[in-house]
Amino acid sequence: MTLDTAQTRLDLRQMGKTARAASRALARAATAQKDAAILAVADALEAHADTILAANALDMDDARAAGLSAAMLDRLSLAKRLPGIAADTRSVAALPDPVGEVFDAAVLPNGLHVEKRRTPLGVLGVIYEARPNVTVDVSVLAIKSGNAAILRGGSETLRSNVALVGVIRDALAASGFPPDVVQLITDRDRRYVGELLRLHEYVDLIIPRGGQSLHQFCRENSAIPVITGGIGICHLYVDESADLSPALDVIFNAKTQRPTVCNALDTVLVHPRVAGDFIPRLIDHLGRAGVAFRLDPLAWDVLRGRDVAGADVQPAGPDDFDTEWLSLVLGVRVVSGLDEALEHIAAHSTGHSDGILTRDEANAARFVDEVDSAAVYVNASTRFTDGGALGLGAEIAISTQKLHARGPMALRELTTYKWVVRGENHVRA
Amino acid sequence: MTLDTAQTRLDLRQMGKTARAASRALARAATAQKDAAILAVADALEAHADTILAANALDMDDARAAGLSAAMLDRLSLAKRLPGIAADTRSVAALPDPVGEVFDAAVLPNGLHVEKRRTPLGVLGVIYEARPNVTVDVSVLAIKSGNAAILRGGSETLRSNVALVGVIRDALAASGFPPDVVQLITDRDRRYVGELLRLHEYVDLIIPRGGQSLHQFCRENSAIPVITGGIGICHLYVDESADLSPALDVIFNAKTQRPTVCNALDTVLVHPRVAGDFIPRLIDHLGRAGVAFRLDPLAWDVLRGRDVAGADVQPAGPDDFDTEWLSLVLGVRVVSGLDEALEHIAAHSTGHSDGILTRDEANAARFVDEVDSAAVYVNASTRFTDGGALGLGAEIAISTQKLHARGPMALRELTTYKWVVRGENHVRA
Repeated sequence: MTLDTAQTRLDLRQMGKTARAASRALARAATAQKDAAILAVADALEAHADTILAANALDMDDARAAGLSAAMLDRLSLAKRLPGIAADTRSVAALPDPVGEVFDAAVLPNGLHVEKRRTPLGVLGVIYEARPNVTVDVSVLAIKSGNAAILRGGSETLRSNVALVGVIRDALAASGFPPDVVQLITDRDRRYVGELLRLHEYVDLIIPRGGQSLHQFCRENSAIPVITGGIGICHLYVDESADLSPALDVIFNAKTQRPTVCNALDTVLVHPRVAGDFIPRLIDHLGRAGVAFRLDPLAWDVLRGRDVAGADVQPAGPDDFDTEWLSLVLGVRVVSGLDEALEHIAAHSTGHSDGILTRDEANAARFVDEVDSAAVYVNASTRFTDGGALGLGAEIAISTQKLHARGPMALRELTTYKWVVRGENHVRA
Repeated sequence: MTLDTAQTRLDLRQMGKTARAASRALARAATAQKDAAILAVADALEAHADTILAANALDMDDARAAGLSAAMLDRLSLAKRLPGIAADTRSVAALPDPVGEVFDAAVLPNGLHVEKRRTPLGVLGVIYEARPNVTVDVSVLAIKSGNAAILRGGSETLRSNVALVGVIRDALAASGFPPDVVQLITDRDRRYVGELLRLHEYVDLIIPRGGQSLHQFCRENSAIPVITGGIGICHLYVDESADLSPALDVIFNAKTQRPTVCNALDTVLVHPRVAGDFIPRLIDHLGRAGVAFRLDPLAWDVLRGRDVAGADVQPAGPDDFDTEWLSLVLGVRVVSGLDEALEHIAAHSTGHSDGILTRDEANAARFVDEVDSAAVYVNASTRFTDGGALGLGAEIAISTQKLHARGPMALRELTTYKWVVRGENHVRA
């Protein structure tokens, strides 16, 4: 597969039709055959590392010439990541196969045997930005869950993606599967994103992976169900009864362990009874790690006349509590208690990950009941909202919408089910 | 609540905001309080039967004046249905409440307690045609599952719906709930359907109930997830080993028991070894019940020179195997065997309900594995695809799309889940 820059017109309907046909072959495959294909992908990634890294180097040259930031360049680079990607691929082969699982089995009073059986969704459309490792992650999770995939990666990594998809398709073919299980939209023209979103005859689910504008574009333009998510304005509420030293550790972890991701903490809400003690410690401890603070007037009052030892502390602006920081900035607000904390979260959370730090079981229970987010925490860091960290073994997306799947999604969330009904020539009365 | 025909502009955003607030109150409610409200609705439907039937009589007058068919008039009429609607309402109160159910609970190796807990979706937007009983069905299922609902019924039944929703809202208020748990779009202007479909900030799920064009309109214009479904081109395949007499009974039931609904049979596929025996019996038996037949050339050949006793038998036209008949018409095709039956179903089924009639376990297993429909049957009538008949106790829709829920949907399918994670000040390494 080579990069055809002279390509004038992709036929997305044909790609959809081909993907649908390939998905049928894959849906019938035994787990062992799918796992063999996945292991073949891992081997091929290692065997063809030179080709892949050469393509990636060209993408990197262009990106440097275009003046992309060091952070962005780091996201594009496969140089140090290929062994990790191969290892992750092998770990997907080792996960249990959700396809064929039977649940809700029952014999009805009339003798009908009814059960639900998990089946692949069919064809996934995945639209993503930067990070070429997503190309492999998504392809491998699709294969394992019995789905075909049509990929549209970022144009900055087109050469890398073409190389990776070429390797994946060859490994599929060598394993007895149609290579069209994985197809890549190789044209940079953005109109193909729009066409993909209308291909409901052939594509069953759209998974966008990228920023807020990509998710919004997909939701507003897709005739296919879309998993929106990945945007997290995340809160931790420090309750009156919180154990303050461990609370500080949890907040430190949630804010600083990986500040650029969606489950990183954005806002701390503090009970007034502990604010005087806690907020100065928060600013001291996190300030040393380079965190800058945006304080509401009550939190600001707490600091009046105190030495904040050169920490970057500013009054919160009007949009600061509606901002996903993705950086070492933290909003701090003193709320009157649990009720106001719940109100703040209802008004400002994106429904991703929110938690309470408390020793009061009743308050923990109310928080869990009333906060309507994908993941609700009691005495733990919001950083755990992740397929790997919550025991799924992998992750294709984090959903903050409510249909189909919520929170981290992995293999089971890439399946649907069919009702299987067995009778002895039963008729309806 | 009176019908405001002078109304010039509904504020759907305001309706959405109000619905969202009402849904929060309902989401926190105990099962007993929701059940009390549902029983209050049932009582109120009986207590205010005169008002409701008077409004319905006015709708019926208009419908008669507009020359609507007798079948349509029957669908609009509440005259004989109100006691049944009240009884169905009481049976929803008796169903188990899915909200709060815990599943997939686990303690991770690091000691984190993880579980999923079912929660209401939030706000449902339901767009339907004719049948005013849907107004009550949907409202009651929404209340039980903890969801608010914004309803947009058919304009032919606007007065009936206004009366029904008025009764429901009064019963909600008397039971301590915000009446805005159930709201009705009272303006006939179709632009409000479009506005409802874009209200993603406040509405979590769109459920269309009506014909194919309504489903298509919703799918193509909605920024909110849509449950499409309710369109069934349904197949039964009579395998070589089928027990022919009971097969005839199953097909008779699937075709004639209620021909106007989506799970009624549309096409019979027949193995060539049994075609000569079976097809004449099929035409004789179903022909007596008024069924008309559309035969492919091979089935037609079977009948050559036979007396079909005046049955309505015609060669199938080019679109006949892609038609949902919704009437006493049946397509008949002789296929070369199971493979061709599977191919025919893959090409022509709408993914609703398809079955095999066989005594061969291996063929039954292949059929179940390979037919990608919401409900797959072995030796039973397709008419069982129904929430009540499959043990759900109720039904809000039948989904033929693959996300979230497939096949009959009832209370559990109107919920989502949240992850609840409890730690002892756990941080991510």
